[in-house]
Amino acid sequence: MSEIGIALLGLGRAGSFHLASLRSLPGARLRQVYDPDAAKAERVARETGCHRARDAKQAVTAAGVDAVVIATPTLTHHGLVLAALEAGRPVLSEKPLGVRPEEIDQCFERAREEGVPLLVAFQRRFDPSFAAVLEAAHAGEMGQLQFIRSVSRDNPVPGIDYIRTSCGIFHDCAVHDLDMVCQIAEAAPEEVFAFASSFIPEIGAVGDVDNVAIALRFPGGLLATIDVNRKSAYGYDQRLEVFGSGGMLQVENRPRTLAVRASEAGIARPPADHSFPTRYRDAYRAELECFLDCVRGKRAVPITHEQVRRSHAVAEAAERSFREGRPLAPDV
Amino acid sequence: MSEIGIALLGLGRAGSFHLASLRSLPGARLRQVYDPDAAKAERVARETGCHRARDAKQAVTAAGVDAVVIATPTLTHHGLVLAALEAGRPVLSEKPLGVRPEEIDQCFERAREEGVPLLVAFQRRFDPSFAAVLEAAHAGEMGQLQFIRSVSRDNPVPGIDYIRTSCGIFHDCAVHDLDMVCQIAEAAPEEVFAFASSFIPEIGAVGDVDNVAIALRFPGGLLATIDVNRKSAYGYDQRLEVFGSGGMLQVENRPRTLAVRASEAGIARPPADHSFPTRYRDAYRAELECFLDCVRGKRAVPITHEQVRRSHAVAEAAERSFREGRPLAPDV
Amino acid sequence: MSEIGIALLGLGRAGSFHLASLRSLPGARLRQVYDPDAAKAERVARETGCHRARDAKQAVTAAGVDAVVIATPTLTHHGLVLAALEAGRPVLSEKPLGVRPEEIDQCFERAREEGVPLLVAFQRRFDPSFAAVLEAAHAGEMGQLQFIRSVSRDNPVPGIDYIRTSCGIFHDCAVHDLDMVCQIAEAAPEEVFAFASSFIPEIGAVGDVDNVAIALRFPGGLLATIDVNRKSAYGYDQRLEVFGSGGMLQVENRPRTLAVRASEAGIARPPADHSFPTRYRDAYRAELECFLDCVRGKRAVPITHEQVRRSHAVAEAAERSFREGRPLAPDV
Amino acid sequence: MSEIGIALLGLGRAGSFHLASLRSLPGARLRQVYDPDAAKAERVARETGCHRARDAKQAVTAAGVDAVVIATPTLTHHGLVLAALEAGRPVLSEKPLGVRPEEIDQCFERAREEGVPLLVAFQRRFDPSFAAVLEAAHAGEMGQLQFIRSVSRDNPVPGIDYIRTSCGIFHDCAVHDLDMVCQIAEAAPEEVFAFASSFIPEIGAVGDVDNVAIALRFPGGLLATIDVNRKSAYGYDQRLEVFGSGGMLQVENRPRTLAVRASEAGIARPPADHSFPTRYRDAYRAELECFLDCVRGKRAVPITHEQVRRSHAVAEAAERSFREGRPLAPDV
Repeated sequence: MSEIGIALLGLGRAGSFHLASLRSLPGARLRQVYDPDAAKAERVARETGCHRARDAKQAVTAAGVDAVVIATPTLTHHGLVLAALEAGRPVLSEKPLGVRPEEIDQCFERAREEGVPLLVAFQRRFDPSFAAVLEAAHAGEMGQLQFIRSVSRDNPVPGIDYIRTSCGIFHDCAVHDLDMVCQIAEAAPEEVFAFASSFIPEIGAVGDVDNVAIALRFPGGLLATIDVNRKSAYGYDQRLEVFGSGGMLQVENRPRTLAVRASEAGIARPPADHSFPTRYRDAYRAELECFLDCVRGKRAVPITHEQVRRSHAVAEAAERSFREGRPLAPDV
Repeated sequence: MSEIGIALLGLGRAGSFHLASLRSLPGARLRQVYDPDAAKAERVARETGCHRARDAKQAVTAAGVDAVVIATPTLTHHGLVLAALEAGRPVLSEKPLGVRPEEIDQCFERAREEGVPLLVAFQRRFDPSFAAVLEAAHAGEMGQLQFIRSVSRDNPVPGIDYIRTSCGIFHDCAVHDLDMVCQIAEAAPEEVFAFASSFIPEIGAVGDVDNVAIALRFPGGLLATIDVNRKSAYGYDQRLEVFGSGGMLQVENRPRTLAVRASEAGIARPPADHSFPTRYRDAYRAELECFLDCVRGKRAVPITHEQVRRSHAVAEAAERSFREGRPLAPDV
Repeated sequence: MSEIGIALLGLGRAGSFHLASLRSLPGARLRQVYDPDAAKAERVARETGCHRARDAKQAVTAAGVDAVVIATPTLTHHGLVLAALEAGRPVLSEKPLGVRPEEIDQCFERAREEGVPLLVAFQRRFDPSFAAVLEAAHAGEMGQLQFIRSVSRDNPVPGIDYIRTSCGIFHDCAVHDLDMVCQIAEAAPEEVFAFASSFIPEIGAVGDVDNVAIALRFPGGLLATIDVNRKSAYGYDQRLEVFGSGGMLQVENRPRTLAVRASEAGIARPPADHSFPTRYRDAYRAELECFLDCVRGKRAVPITHEQVRRSHAVAEAAERSFREGRPLAPDV
Repeated sequence: MSEIGIALLGLGRAGSFHLASLRSLPGARLRQVYDPDAAKAERVARETGCHRARDAKQAVTAAGVDAVVIATPTLTHHGLVLAALEAGRPVLSEKPLGVRPEEIDQCFERAREEGVPLLVAFQRRFDPSFAAVLEAAHAGEMGQLQFIRSVSRDNPVPGIDYIRTSCGIFHDCAVHDLDMVCQIAEAAPEEVFAFASSFIPEIGAVGDVDNVAIALRFPGGLLATIDVNRKSAYGYDQRLEVFGSGGMLQVENRPRTLAVRASEAGIARPPADHSFPTRYRDAYRAELECFLDCVRGKRAVPITHEQVRRSHAVAEAAERSFREGRPLAPDV
């Protein structure tokens, strides 16, 4: 099994845990690293014994690069994904592939033409707990599905510079819940309705919201609610509940440690994992392993064009429902 | 402290746990009992040493009766409440007081005129766990409230005869969640939206639904979702979640016993309490104690006319939102 | 089914919850009540409409008394049990029946001679959680049993007057754990070893200890440990763990309410139930129901002479092991 | 911060997770790897770009090696530790350093003479959950300590070849519990008593036991129990309980995933982590990071000669107590 040479673009929030996974994964070798912060990139290059690229496109086309991992700011994804695909390189990219559905289509079509895998990083799919619930739901363990609830509460609040170019909470956060809910439902919703509000003045000031409630109606009567918030005091909160005629499946939060304190004041466990790098450590690693398998042709890309487009369309419908104050059918 | 003589009307689901509380509460004495099933009423009268009334109105006006507990079928509440109030007797009644808001108003106005307490049995308010969360939320323990979720899943499914005269799931079940959510919010919602569906053919056949998702928007940006289902395989499921800037309050379910089984198959606890008589045993008792205190003038009725009317109006708006497919402002 | 007339002796810690059960149990009627505190007994007699006996023996032999419940101070049990049995009355007595094993034997022999049931109140046996674990263990759910751990931590600390006449922590507290452990093992241990110490000066001052660790070895290699403490800050702590080749059974504590608080400080549940009257409310009631069934001849006494004697002998061996600093074989 | 060159001896159970940590830790570089299985060592050498040593002592003294990690079979530890120390190389070694206390002393004395750090791998000390409890106990969060319970149940059962040279369950397993208990107590016990038995015929056949209960008495009246078993059906079970006048600290097990299944059969979570490599992943990494800090002189070795000797002596006393059937004072 030969080593796959990787170009890693972006060393920010997402880039740094991809870096950690790449350091420890046998079968992958970091060849090129790029970040606009040259000093940071230089340091990483030195520590890992790889090359620092002067610009992202150069990294993508460099010799020895077999595949590309894209973790740059949201609005640069589309161009870099296309550049990598055009160079015939398989791509693992943070979502979204673009701000309009046509951009998503364009990427997947180009991947198809080039015959190379394109994996969009809906990391929750690779989390062992979410994956177990998804599998159990599809295996019929809880009978006929009737209701789903997904909740995502962020911690800590991302910086306002990130928020500003994040495409809004519906596309930046809720899309992960929508992807999971639609995946469990194996369908797009027929109707979506959303309420939203802002409690964090900086976020309200840039026209975004930070508190969202979404209701969904799927074919056959399956209903769902999603609630998303940008700031959870007790740690990163990522829960799921799937209710059916036979019972309920849930994903719980993981406390930061396994220590318990019992006193007159009560029985206290630590707050949830601080944030996504620790909560999804295993998921990010599994995602990267999946990507390597896709590059080697040992596995088909598990997150399809249709699914990525569906999640985008439902997020779009939810946001428009909130803006227009009425239920909408997503354009899938 | 003299004993309060009680007339208990109805010995069905609700009546039987009121009976159990009455047996063990010092300060109350059962004087009259009525149920259309004369044999059942006779048996209870014999066991408790009280009198079996031949009809409900006779029980209400009998000598020695200081207060009336009404647990008869839904559609009879209104008439019996009025009859008892007109006889100058304090009333504890299962909800609803009537099917139209005017009927609720009429009861409370009559109670005011007669100067006697009228307590509507929203028993969740008296449950130690719900009460603790309500109190902590109002005390500001979790900072500014941003999101509430309430879930009620029934077990077992009530008989179709009950369903038929229950006024529908919005007024029969969801109204408890709506009461709690509005109580925590200390407000009526500005807008309500609901999806609903039926998975139980018998329930669909009588025009009712058994699976409901409600979204609410309150003044100031507080949002809420409620989900209700008639049939929960793992036991009676009654949970609450109140999220604010400082953290989250929750009410969990209680497992049937404290036994745990750990094996290769996993770590298993028993399902939730089977149903409301065990889950709310302490709440029903506390409700009755509160009622006795109201009768003695030691305490004001904690569930006000305005609150009962508000819960009714929001349930009505939720049902109409579902029927009409659009968000509605409740008529409060 | 005719009502059973009950004489209740003692209205202290144990007597008061027997009183509460008796008020609500159909099938039993309180006829006589006795307590050295005449005013308290008078008040109870008035509230329940029964007769206050001037002395305990008079209560036992009074007309209308079909059975006797003994909840008086420890050192009076033996005499009162014998008096009731001699009067041909079935007895439910708090443990111990006496301070020496011969006294236990004497009581059971007298009960056998009189042909009336004698039930010793090891209430943990009637608790639904402990009973479920006991049943599962005997049903072989966890395969071959290898290790048992029982823990009992009291809250609040009983008054020093109680402690002084309690026969010591081994016979007063640990005997409940020993009864349960031997019952699960279906055997007496071959060897017992104990360490103990005192952290509460008042208890140490009367020659008792308040912190105990016991190790037991049963035939076939099953081992057990028991730890007992008089003062648990986080509430009454009563847990059990049964480990076998197929897994583990546990009894957990019950939090005071189902409310959860999640904040930056962690995820907090309330402390355990304050003490035995709430923790064992259902157990005490089930125990009394069992006793009524025994009185009616519908059920054999489930706690046998041999079992009561065994628990006493093992408690005795544990205490002596601690005093002598060496492992001992209990005299069973 | 220059990279520390590491020689890793042994690629078995312990060696493989040290390898995983070493791959991902910035600041360390694997230089030499040795295992009696030359093919395995060759493969690792190739994957990590390091040199395969032909024998262990050669690895230790090779150029570029700044520090040595020893994860070879138990009985080889002593010789290799001494060889590495004599070569002036800091050592991280799996326990035990030897089978007799003099061997432990010899290693630490040599380390002192050479002025190089020697860290014995009691990895539980580096686990965030155990460390949090240890710290809270010493900070007085639970007041005066009165009782400790530690439980370790293995899964899966190690192979009989491992068992045969493991020095017995007291020194191989219970020593971790004893280390933690004594560390919390900040003392050696005055007396130790143990029962033990065997339920796994292969283990009994080689003269070892697989089921152990130990009781300990510390100065001042603090008591402890430890129970250890070689085979836990529900996964690797590693719990701790520290009880004091102010409450209780606990370390719980971590379920394999965060998924929950609620059905008529109950509420089920997955079994505990399968075994030490996953349970202690973070601990092993933190241990290695600590070792690197010790090598760089940034931190003193946190596990002292006296502590290692104490744990050995108490394990020895526990085993002898079991063999001789009487309580013993450890030779510390």
